[in-house]
Parts: sequence; C-alpha cells; structure tokens
Amino acid sequence: MNIGVIGSGSWGTALAILLSNNGHQVTLWTRFREEAEMLENKREHVKNLPGVRIPEGIRITTQVQEAVSGKEILVFAVPSQFTRSTAELCKPAIGKDQILVNVAKGLEEGTLYTMQEVINDVLPENRVVVLSGPSHAEEVARGIPTSVVIASHQEETVLTVQDVFMSENFRVYGSHDLIGIEMGGSLKNVIALAAGVSDGLGYGDNTKAALMTRGMAEISRLGVAMGAKAATFNGLSGIGDLIVTCTSMHSRNRRCGILIGQGASLEEALAEVKMVVEGVYSAKAALELAHKHQVEMPIIEQVNLVLFHGKSPREAVFDLMERDKKFE
Amino acid sequence: MNIGVIGSGSWGTALAILLSNNGHQVTLWTRFREEAEMLENKREHVKNLPGVRIPEGIRITTQVQEAVSGKEILVFAVPSQFTRSTAELCKPAIGKDQILVNVAKGLEEGTLYTMQEVINDVLPENRVVVLSGPSHAEEVARGIPTSVVIASHQEETVLTVQDVFMSENFRVYGSHDLIGIEMGGSLKNVIALAAGVSDGLGYGDNTKAALMTRGMAEISRLGVAMGAKAATFNGLSGIGDLIVTCTSMHSRNRRCGILIGQGASLEEALAEVKMVVEGVYSAKAALELAHKHQVEMPIIEQVNLVLFHGKSPREAVFDLMERDKKFE
Repeated sequence: MNIGVIGSGSWGTALAILLSNNGHQVTLWTRFREEAEMLENKREHVKNLPGVRIPEGIRITTQVQEAVSGKEILVFAVPSQFTRSTAELCKPAIGKDQILVNVAKGLEEGTLYTMQEVINDVLPENRVVVLSGPSHAEEVARGIPTSVVIASHQEETVLTVQDVFMSENFRVYGSHDLIGIEMGGSLKNVIALAAGVSDGLGYGDNTKAALMTRGMAEISRLGVAMGAKAATFNGLSGIGDLIVTCTSMHSRNRRCGILIGQGASLEEALAEVKMVVEGVYSAKAALELAHKHQVEMPIIEQVNLVLFHGKSPREAVFDLMERDKKFE
Repeated sequence: MNIGVIGSGSWGTALAILLSNNGHQVTLWTRFREEAEMLENKREHVKNLPGVRIPEGIRITTQVQEAVSGKEILVFAVPSQFTRSTAELCKPAIGKDQILVNVAKGLEEGTLYTMQEVINDVLPENRVVVLSGPSHAEEVARGIPTSVVIASHQEETVLTVQDVFMSENFRVYGSHDLIGIEMGGSLKNVIALAAGVSDGLGYGDNTKAALMTRGMAEISRLGVAMGAKAATFNGLSGIGDLIVTCTSMHSRNRRCGILIGQGASLEEALAEVKMVVEGVYSAKAALELAHKHQVEMPIIEQVNLVLFHGKSPREAVFDLMERDKKFE
C-alpha cells in the first residue's frame, strides 16, 4: 500500500519504519526543512530515536501534496494541539476514499473534542481510525513486542488497517469503541500526574496502584456516560497505556507530578519539565466533562484543586482516603 | 471490638497493628514459640517488618483458645497452603457468630478451591469475608495510604468489617463479588511470572504492559465463566494488585520469571528464589479451570508450556504475537 505519515516526531518516525518494514511504500512528512534534511542525510532521527536506522525505502518530504496524494492511508502523527491545523493544511490534497489513522492523544481546548472528532470536523467525508495503546515509540522502532488497539465504526476499515500495521512484533487488536479508546488515551495523563504527586510525597506502591486503579474507574465512568463501553478502559488503550505511562521514567506527566508532590508550584514544575505536560490540560478538560455529564470524579477533582487552587497534595490524598464507605 | 489475628507473618502483623491503632482489642496468634517470644520481647517483627513498633495493646499468644474465643472477628492470615489445616485447628474454639476475614490468596491444589471456599468447607456455618487489593504489608505497617476491597455476600457483614478496618490511611471498598475478588488475587501471580519472563528476555515496557492488560482480560474471562463480575477484575483486587506485584522488586513471582526469561529452567529458578513461588501452582490451576470452564487463555497456556514443557520463552512470546487478528 501507499501510505503517508504526517509528522516525523518519535511516534510518526517509528510507525513509518514499522510500515516500511511491513512492505509498504511510505512517505514521511515533516513541516521542518532541517528535520527533513537530517532524516534524509543521516537516515536516523538523531534526537528522538538515536541508533535506529530509517530504511532507504522511506521517502522524506516537506511537501504536503507529495505526502498526501495517491496514498490509500494517511497516518496523522502530530502533537494533538496541531491536529486541527495539520488536517486543514492537508485538506486540499485529501480525497474522500483515503483512510485517516490518528495516533495523537488529547482533547481540544474549548471544544473538548477528541482528535478523531477534530479530524472529522475538518474532513467529514473520510473514514477516521484511531490507534492507541501502551507503545513507547523507541521500543516500537527497535522491534520490541508491542500490542495496540485500532478503532473505527466500520468493521471492514478496522480489518484493513489491522493488516497494514500487524507484524511479528506489533500485534493490533480491533475495536468499535472509538470514544472509549480516545478517552482512555487522553485522560490517562491526568492519572499519571496524580501518581507522580503520590511518588513525590514519598508514598508507596500501594498508594500509586490504588490511584491508578480508582483513577481509571473514574475515567471509565465518564467514558460510559459519553457512550463508551466500560470494558475498553480495562484494555490496551486504558489501563495498559496508563501502566506504561506510570512506570516510565520518561513520562513528563509523572515527572511534573513528582515535583508538585515535593512542594513545587505548578508554574515551577512546568518550568523545570520544559515540555508540554498534557495532563495539566486534560485535568481541566476532564473536570469540565465530568460536570457536563454529571459524573463523580473525586481524584480528577483533587488533581484540579492541587494544580489550580493551591491545595496541598498531602491534604488532597487525605481527603480522598476519608470519604464515605463505598462499594467498588 | 475483640479481634483475633491468626498468623503473624508480615501481613498478619501489619493488620494487627492497623486494627490496634483503630482502637480494637487485638490478639495475635502464631504457632511458633520463638516467634511469639520475639514479638513479645522486642515488640517488633525483626525479620519481616524491621523498625515497626508493635503496640503494647496487642496480645501475643501461641494458644488457639486464647486467640479465638470471645472474638467477634477472626482474621485468617496464614499462607494459603496452611489455610485448611489452620481452620481445622481453630474449629473447636470457633462459634458460629464469629465473622471470619480471610486475607490469604491462592487456590487449593486438587480441589481448586479459593481460600474462602476452603474455610467455608471447614466452617460452613460462619460468615466468611475476603480482604484483597494492592497492599504491601510493610507499607500498611508504616501507615502509607492504601486502598483495599472487602467482599461478602451479606451487605451488613461488609459494612461491619469496613468500619473495623478503615482508617485515615487505609481505605476499604466493599464488594459482593467474592469469587471475582478471590480469582483476581490468586491468578495475578501467573501474570507477574509472565511479566518477569518478558523482562528477563530483555523486552520493554510495551511488552509488559500488554501482557498485564491481556493477562487480566484472560483472568476476567475465566472469572466471569465461574460467576464473577467482569468489573471486579478492573478493580483493586484485579489490575490494582497486579500493578503492585509487577512493579515490585520484591515479587518472587516476577523474580522467578526473570530467571526463566534469562534461560534458567524452572528447577534452577526455584532453587535460586528459595521461596514458594505461588504463580507456578496457580499457572497449573488456572489451566485446569480454563479447560473445565472452556475459556480461551492463550497467555496462561504459554506460561504452562514454558514452565512445564520446556518451551523457549522467546518462542512463547512469538506465538502470542502471531495469533489471528482479534477484537479487544
């Protein structure tokens, strides 16, 4: 198949390599000329995936037309805050038969749309598939066994995209629960932040495991109120992705949480992490959605109080422990 | 309340301390005279919970009669392979109004009974409650925030036991899904073993998170076939407990798995770990149950092939990745 990968960050590059190794014709697009030159000349993403060879068969381009036209599948792999503008940039070159695969996670500020909804808003005639799950890009690029899930409303589209991505080191499950897959992937970062706060406070494995489990239960409640299936949140894009995020040393969300747990303010923590900490935005979005759908989300609420209203993290954990007796 | 804790290992001792701090009259029973003397004289479980003070209010005894009679609640905290014999030992002193709380996890060899079923078999007139969840004993003994779940068929019994255990650092959820709570707690060790094998092979966070997620999905399928609720396996006694086990450096199951992943035989791995590795027995029990209830459990099956039939771990992972396209 002819496939265009839009965005050459770690994840876009890793997926381009996977798809090329699966025998597809892959064109990798970046908006940055220097990045394109680095990829072209070194055949390596020096900064993000050092030591991983980019196969000669992958065509590198900064031309939207070249990346998009004639491709059966387009993979959108830009950071979530650029998904709308990139979809708009590509729109003139996109035909309605092309399958769009989104791999970015997050909710759009203001609209609270998932990335699939954003793409659908810009390109309403195209089929949009979502790929999500516990998948560090570096590990996928190095061929370490990984399992993910792909979701679409159309069974046939799922099967097509599964075939395209599946390899002996990359197992792809199918799902019809688009909203569940996207909410799990987007909101896990808030729980990773909370888990970091717990670590920063010096609490233990018990505390963190409970926060992760009960946090995912909250996200699941919200998701179900929005039309998702509860089981999705126990899957690869829910708890699976959360496990990878919370155990990784590299997670910025967790790192930001650790700093706050140790006493830093949100501003200080963000200044130190120096990158976009998606959990901070998602925390706000999750609370808005909780109110809109009238779902109780005690952990999300405490995270918001700590992040934006100066509540002490220790008091927040205390308040979570002290609630009434509940059934699981 | 008057409470007897039967078994003075790490978990029994930690719970005795918690209950004493909650204001209850606690008697802690051990079958070993030297252990009783150590606990009595040092007021510390020197080997298992060093540095944690055992309150003066806790009475230490080796007399079953003293530990059992006149107690409203008895906590069974002996290793699962001794649960039956200990229940039989206590039986003559137990009255039918006493609530029995089991905190041991595992399945009985041969009968494949859960520990609650074992206790019920010996003491059919008593109400049996199960306590489970992500709870390293050392962390509970040190007052680190922990959440667990308590299950019983009777609502009133759940509420009573919740009140007895709840503290500002120990949150107790209720559940009516006894079989679900027990199956999650018992079978998580098999998945911890598989996660260890993956680590031992040098695979990554992606692989381990996928094994944990899909492993719990298998356990959930089996549990549902046995009458449990699927949601229970996403709770504290399912994925929560699995997270703690798989991230802990101290898990023997994980350590045993790592050695096997690095090339050791089961015998060599067990000789090196030197302790009971429950996942090895649970792996066999789980497969028997899977056949009995006609449930597909591919990960459990591969673990059995690796442990007992000399299959190479790498080939087992390969075979898991290579199966047909599936929906989640």
